[in-house]
Parts: sequence; C-alpha cells; structure tokens
Amino acid sequence: MGPAVEISKTPEGPNAVDRISALLAEDMAAVDAIIHQHMTSPVGVIPNLAAHLIDAGGKRIRPLITLAAARLLGGGGDGPRKLAAAVEFIHSATLLHDDVVDVSSMRRGKKSANTIWGNSSSVLVGDFLFARSFNLMVETGDLMVLDILARAASVIAEGEVMQLAAANDAETTRERYMAIVGAKTAALFAAAAKAGAVAAGRPGVEATALETYGRELGLAFQLVDDALDYGGAAATMGKNTGDDFKEGKVTLPVVFARDAGDEGERAFWRRVVSEERTDDDFHRALALLRRHDAITLTLNAAREHADRAVAALQTLPANAYREALADLPQFVVERGY
Amino acid sequence: MGPAVEISKTPEGPNAVDRISALLAEDMAAVDAIIHQHMTSPVGVIPNLAAHLIDAGGKRIRPLITLAAARLLGGGGDGPRKLAAAVEFIHSATLLHDDVVDVSSMRRGKKSANTIWGNSSSVLVGDFLFARSFNLMVETGDLMVLDILARAASVIAEGEVMQLAAANDAETTRERYMAIVGAKTAALFAAAAKAGAVAAGRPGVEATALETYGRELGLAFQLVDDALDYGGAAATMGKNTGDDFKEGKVTLPVVFARDAGDEGERAFWRRVVSEERTDDDFHRALALLRRHDAITLTLNAAREHADRAVAALQTLPANAYREALADLPQFVVERGY
Repeated sequence: MGPAVEISKTPEGPNAVDRISALLAEDMAAVDAIIHQHMTSPVGVIPNLAAHLIDAGGKRIRPLITLAAARLLGGGGDGPRKLAAAVEFIHSATLLHDDVVDVSSMRRGKKSANTIWGNSSSVLVGDFLFARSFNLMVETGDLMVLDILARAASVIAEGEVMQLAAANDAETTRERYMAIVGAKTAALFAAAAKAGAVAAGRPGVEATALETYGRELGLAFQLVDDALDYGGAAATMGKNTGDDFKEGKVTLPVVFARDAGDEGERAFWRRVVSEERTDDDFHRALALLRRHDAITLTLNAAREHADRAVAALQTLPANAYREALADLPQFVVERGY
Repeated sequence: MGPAVEISKTPEGPNAVDRISALLAEDMAAVDAIIHQHMTSPVGVIPNLAAHLIDAGGKRIRPLITLAAARLLGGGGDGPRKLAAAVEFIHSATLLHDDVVDVSSMRRGKKSANTIWGNSSSVLVGDFLFARSFNLMVETGDLMVLDILARAASVIAEGEVMQLAAANDAETTRERYMAIVGAKTAALFAAAAKAGAVAAGRPGVEATALETYGRELGLAFQLVDDALDYGGAAATMGKNTGDDFKEGKVTLPVVFARDAGDEGERAFWRRVVSEERTDDDFHRALALLRRHDAITLTLNAAREHADRAVAALQTLPANAYREALADLPQFVVERGY
C-alpha cells in the first residue's frame, strides 16, 4: 500500500508560512518588537537565555495564526499584536520547560537553553516568560482573551503531565495519545486562533470556527512532527530522527505498528518503550513502521485533521487572511513527506 | 554585645497567625474550598502532587494578608477569596519550582514533591498551578488585580534567577542580597496586600500603604528565615538548620560575618561558599556568626523592616483587621529567637 494521499513536493519559492508571514510582515515586525521589549530584564541571564530560544528562527506559526484570525475578522490596532506576542511567550515558556522535562540537548538546530545555562535557569526563565505573557494580555485589557489563554495554559500543563505519565507505557492507546496531543499541542493552536477572533470583537460563531481550525491544525502539526521523528514517509534514519524513540515515547506511528504487529513485534515494542533501546533497535523499529505503513497511516490521520481545519474556515469572510490560513494545513502535512 | 532588641518569648496560647486565622476563619474556609476546587484535574498526578504541598500545613500567611487587607478596607464578597486562593497558588507554584532549583529533599517537614514525583512533575504541576492562579484572577474580573499579580510573578522569577546567579558568589553585597530578597520574597507579600486593597475598591493611597506593609513584612520574613537557617539568635545547629550553608548561599548573616571578619575568615567564607563544605565547616561558620553577632544584626534588620510594616498601617482605618495585620510583623520577628 502506497501513500493514500498524493501530495506534490513543495515547489521552489515561498511556502505557505512564507506567504502568511509576508502578508502579515508589518504586524509581525511589530510583534517582534513587542517580544523583545517584554523580554528585557536587568537580570542578564533572562534576556540572553530568552533570546537564544526566541531568536533561533522558529516559524512563529502560533502568533501568525492569532494575527491572521484577528485581521480576517477586521480586527485592527495593537491588541492583536500584543496578544500574538503573548502567545509566542507561552509557547516559548513551554519549550523551555519541555526541554528540561525531556532532557533535550538540542532545539531549533542549536544547543538547548538547558544545555548551556542549566535546568534551573531554564525553569525560572520559562516562569518569567509565562508571567510576561500575562502582563501583555493585561495590557490588551481584554478579560475574555485572558480567560482563553489562561485556560489553555493549564490544559497544556495537564497534557505535559499526561505525557509524562504515559512515557514508557507501551500500552498507550490511540485515544489516550490523541488526548495528550490535544492538550499539549492543539490547545495552544486553538486558543491562539480563538483569541485572535475575540480580539477582533467576534467572540461568537467566528471564534468557535477559528478555535476548531486551530485545534485541528494543531493535531495535524503534532502528528506530522511524530512522523518526521521517524524520518517521515520514508521511515528512514536522518539527522533529526529518533528523539521520541530514544525517550521511549509512544507516538501514533508506534501505536499503529504495535497494534498491527504479531506477538513478537509487540514484545519488541514493550521492551524498547519500557526498558532499554539501542541503535539496532531503532533500525528494527523503522523496518516495522515501514512493514505496517505506520507512517503513512499517521500522515493520513494528520491529513484528515488538516482537511477539517480548512473546512472550519468556510463560514468565515473570504479574504486574503482566510486564504493564508487555509494554506497552512496543507503545508503542515507536506512537511511529512 | 547581647541582642539589641528585647523580645519576650511567645506566650503559650494563640500567636498572631492563629489570631488572624481565627478572625478570618469563615473566609479562609471558603478560600480552602476554592483552592481544592481549582486544583482538581482528570490527570491524577496533578491533584495528588498539589495536595501533598498545599495540605502540608503551610501557614497561608499570604492569602491571610490579602483577605485582611480587603476586609480592613470594607471589601466583601467572593472576589477577595478568589484572589487569596490565586495568591496561594502562585506561592505554591514558586515553592515547587524552588525545590527543583535548590535540589531540596524536604519541605514543610515532609519529603518534597520532587523527591516523590520527580523534578519533571514538580515543574509541570507548578506550571499548572500558576496557570490556575490566572484562571482564578480572571474569575474576579478585575484587570488591576491581574496586573499587580502578573507583575509580581515576573519579578519573583527575576529574583530567583538573580539568586541563582549569586549562588556560590562569595562577594555578594548586602545591597545585592536585599535586592534578591525584595524580588523573590517581598514582591509577593507586597502584591498580596496591594491586591486585597484593590479588590476592596481602594486602589489609591490605601493600596500603596498596604503594598509597603506587605513589602516590609516580606523582607522581615525572609531575613528571619535566613537567621533561623543558622539556628536563630543562638546560632546553633538544630534539626532544620544548615540548608542555606549546604547550598553555598550567601544570606545576610554570612554578609555580616564576612564583612566583619579578618582575612583568614574571609578566605574561609570564600571557600565554603564557592567550593566544598563539611559538617566541621558548618560548626566553624556558626562560631564566626556568633563572634560577629551576625544573627543579632540580621534580626535587628528584620525588626526594622517589621517596624516599617506596622508604621505603614497607621493611616488606615483602625479596626480588628488592621490590628491583626499589625500583630504579624512582631510575630514574624519573634520566630527568630
């Protein structure tokens, strides 16, 4: 069985993220300035550590969604920009704490902050950025937006704790895994989009549509990430592969391969998830994922979520911002190939 | 030179914390219910870990201050209670992260949460409680209160990072140390008191007076804690002493002893702060602290801040709540003896 979806390679030239970034270039320059203003501190470690992460070339996909959602609904002014910066701060705080929890040594192609400054600094600077995100939201003066993002922040923490509890649990089901992804990843995408609508003064059906868009896009995003951790559609070893495997994480590709495997294969997955793992084990894992089309199945699931994200936009005003948002899910899924 | 201040032993019977707790018993029962409602989660580790810390018998001094400040100014209703719960959540989140940063194994006479559930769970549950504190503040619908506590939260993180940077720096000055204490401890006391006034609809001079009260009380509180870590006025080894010494922290007692010591003593402090420490070193440290009256000097400094805290209340309406707040600083300083 080949891939169920046919997707052409990303052509040379700007991709969907480049295009939405160009559309929102002025806004994003302002967001960048707000981010840098609000990460200053007389305590030098804080701006240094924060800049190491924030200036490392992340795609800023979450603040782009917030801004596009607000502009799509006619929201103007500085509010959506502050909100977008707040969303990026919450995301950055989460990354700093994630890297401590996962004992990660690399992030965005550089040494992770905890590797350079230590776990303690990463925990505390994460707290600082999280607090600053609320300072920014208070500046917008919009309690509804604060409510949306404060709820998302507690759901993210729940998702991270669920993931920690599920780590090294070889019996993790697809349902449980999707609940984790919904909380740790999709909740912030959903909140970023919904908050943009609310900031534009449209807290009703438009906000709900954008929340659905964000949630479905976030689910697609995480599943593609999981597929890429095994080399994407090819399921081969590459320079950024194997982190989840090394940590004994049960992600959706593993769930598919495990559930389709025979008893010997299930015993293999139990061992590598809950006990020790070698490079040879990783090669065997890749072979099993290929045998059961587990990456393709994962990317198909991502594609379904991406399609639902696009569908959620249909009732909204058709304009350049909606078009830019509608392009993102396809791009996200293409990354997996 | 004996102690410069004469303080009678705490008499048998209720102390100042018991008395303010009794005065606010109904409010505090409601705060406790709010705390327990808001730390629920379908993710079992979260309420278990949070309850381990929150139900371990802390004195709840910060929420008591918030409530007393609000009631003193005639503030009624549920707002101050939610705010008090939010303040306790911020404090609890800080403790969880502190214990990870300090590698502490004990907290409130029990094994610390990180010892039982691991550092990762403590980081993430701290994040959860921090997010929930903002949920609670949003429920009060009061943006000014959110502003006060969000600012305090970022200052606390700055203080913790400053402390981390100053750890094992034997040259830490008194000024720098007080800046750390002002940020990591006094900022939350100040915000707790100020937010109570704002919740009572008195954001002007009353809020400023209570902010000063909280800040000065917080400074006194931390200095007494530092003195107690060396056995208080007696400067002797006891069952809860020596943590700061073991971590190489330069607290105010060490600053006083170091600055009054000769070259040999300063070399001793440099070594034990920046290199290794033995039990014998701790005994020598205690002897040097006694020689230079360093604990008495620290408690005198605490007393000055306590006096300023009481003085800050003078312009406020004289009632039972003001009296209860006025009793706390004396009690805090008495703990040091």
